[in-house]
Amino acid sequence: MSSNQQNGAVLGREFTQNVIDAMGPKTSPRLRQVMGALISHIHDFAREVQLTTDEWMAGVELINEAGRMSNDRRNEGQLLCDVIGMESLVDDITYTTAIHSANGLTASAILGPFWRHDTPHRDNGTTITFDTPPDGQVVYMHGKVTDVTTGKPLQNASVDVWQASTNGLYEQQDDDQKEHNLRGVFHTDAEGCYSFYCLRPTPYPVPMDGPAGKLLAMMDRQVFRPAHIHLMVQQEGYKSLTTQIFDQECKYLDKDSVFAVKDELKVEFVPRKGDPQAPLELEYNITLAKTS
Amino acid sequence: MSSNQQNGAVLGREFTQNVIDAMGPKTSPRLRQVMGALISHIHDFAREVQLTTDEWMAGVELINEAGRMSNDRRNEGQLLCDVIGMESLVDDITYTTAIHSANGLTASAILGPFWRHDTPHRDNGTTITFDTPPDGQVVYMHGKVTDVTTGKPLQNASVDVWQASTNGLYEQQDDDQKEHNLRGVFHTDAEGCYSFYCLRPTPYPVPMDGPAGKLLAMMDRQVFRPAHIHLMVQQEGYKSLTTQIFDQECKYLDKDSVFAVKDELKVEFVPRKGDPQAPLELEYNITLAKTS
Repeated sequence: MSSNQQNGAVLGREFTQNVIDAMGPKTSPRLRQVMGALISHIHDFAREVQLTTDEWMAGVELINEAGRMSNDRRNEGQLLCDVIGMESLVDDITYTTAIHSANGLTASAILGPFWRHDTPHRDNGTTITFDTPPDGQVVYMHGKVTDVTTGKPLQNASVDVWQASTNGLYEQQDDDQKEHNLRGVFHTDAEGCYSFYCLRPTPYPVPMDGPAGKLLAMMDRQVFRPAHIHLMVQQEGYKSLTTQIFDQECKYLDKDSVFAVKDELKVEFVPRKGDPQAPLELEYNITLAKTS
Repeated sequence: MSSNQQNGAVLGREFTQNVIDAMGPKTSPRLRQVMGALISHIHDFAREVQLTTDEWMAGVELINEAGRMSNDRRNEGQLLCDVIGMESLVDDITYTTAIHSANGLTASAILGPFWRHDTPHRDNGTTITFDTPPDGQVVYMHGKVTDVTTGKPLQNASVDVWQASTNGLYEQQDDDQKEHNLRGVFHTDAEGCYSFYCLRPTPYPVPMDGPAGKLLAMMDRQVFRPAHIHLMVQQEGYKSLTTQIFDQECKYLDKDSVFAVKDELKVEFVPRKGDPQAPLELEYNITLAKTS
């Protein structure tokens, strides 16, 4: 462009096209597509609401604050996206696109900011709750992992599970919980089965001490996540599944602060007889689709 | 919403509307408008390019990294916005909206990330270049600040000026420059005049060691800013002016990496006779508009 000036009118589409066209010939085609659309939409947004410098700068500060608070135990930039539905949306796009949905395939849900890459393997039938709180209800959770097309059990699939305690905190947020409490990676047996003891999940508010919390407060939003258990299931040759299952009795089901609930991910915890370790039981079967 | 599920289709406008409608009754009308439009456009962007989880997460990491690098001397979140034209756009919106442009009004340009709030007052006719580099050309810059409507001179208006040295660095980026080198706040005299010695500005690349630099490299973009001097001019009862003036001979004028150039902000440095302190001169007059 020779100039951004437009005779007193607000910078319009021509300006936006100039910014997009500044990308050089070595930009990858995909990055050109993504950045072109991002620049176009974000400029349209600014023009549509007549965004002022002060408002834009408040947004910049929110983003910088998110970065400063983020570390290997916390991802506030991710949480900012979550509360405006972005992680749920891209999760859905990614999963729908990759799978060309087979009937009966277990639905995905967002990873969220509390997964850890270094969760230890545990044996089937053992527990992930090492310091069960007085208000905690222990659940025996078990199920089978199968191929969605053939129905055949998948042996040695990894089932990575993580959940918050009844105080609403994951172990990395809470000095009073043992390292890797309420987390474990299980592997299915020859029949495709996994099993472990965990807690019946309880609702909790997203962390309110950072910019995501500040934004939620400004938007006068409900901050609780409905009671859920996180799962990540992987098997070689199959598309990885990241999901969450939701207690169908939870009152926050229809107002999740990060918009992750899907109908088919609602589950029922039922009474369990004759097990001194757990008054409740949950059977949850999982299907995976081949990558190709 | 009772569910985000849409029978296998990618989450659509209904999902987006649910996220927008989650804002509570105590949200301010302006925040509702801004966040509603932001959510709408950012979701449309994700759907349009079929943004994947990995791509979105790369964006989150870029934002978190920007926050971690930002401090009172550097604003990488702002720079990320600058390289996609956002600061120029909101500056233009803000200024155009506030002013209802009077004829002859000095145009605005972006603040950029290098302004300091604690720049000292200096007397007219003094210098801001305290350790002039061997390749630096000293300029005697002077001009008059007037009311755009009446043409009357404005006494005691503050003229805050800042510029990079010939190595492309502002003093807060460069341990070899004296504190507040190439910065000063001047005040106009009874005739509305200001004057000081500074450097003829030289082009410089935006900082390339952070996420904004990473993004520019990925976009195969030209990274230089054309040679410019920053100005912020304020007078009680008048709309503050933040702007930049650009050397009309600079080769980067038509490809500014942050899209701030406007035709009427191009200036000519001319030879100065009989002043042992400066071989060049620049006269730059400024007009301000009343706030109401």
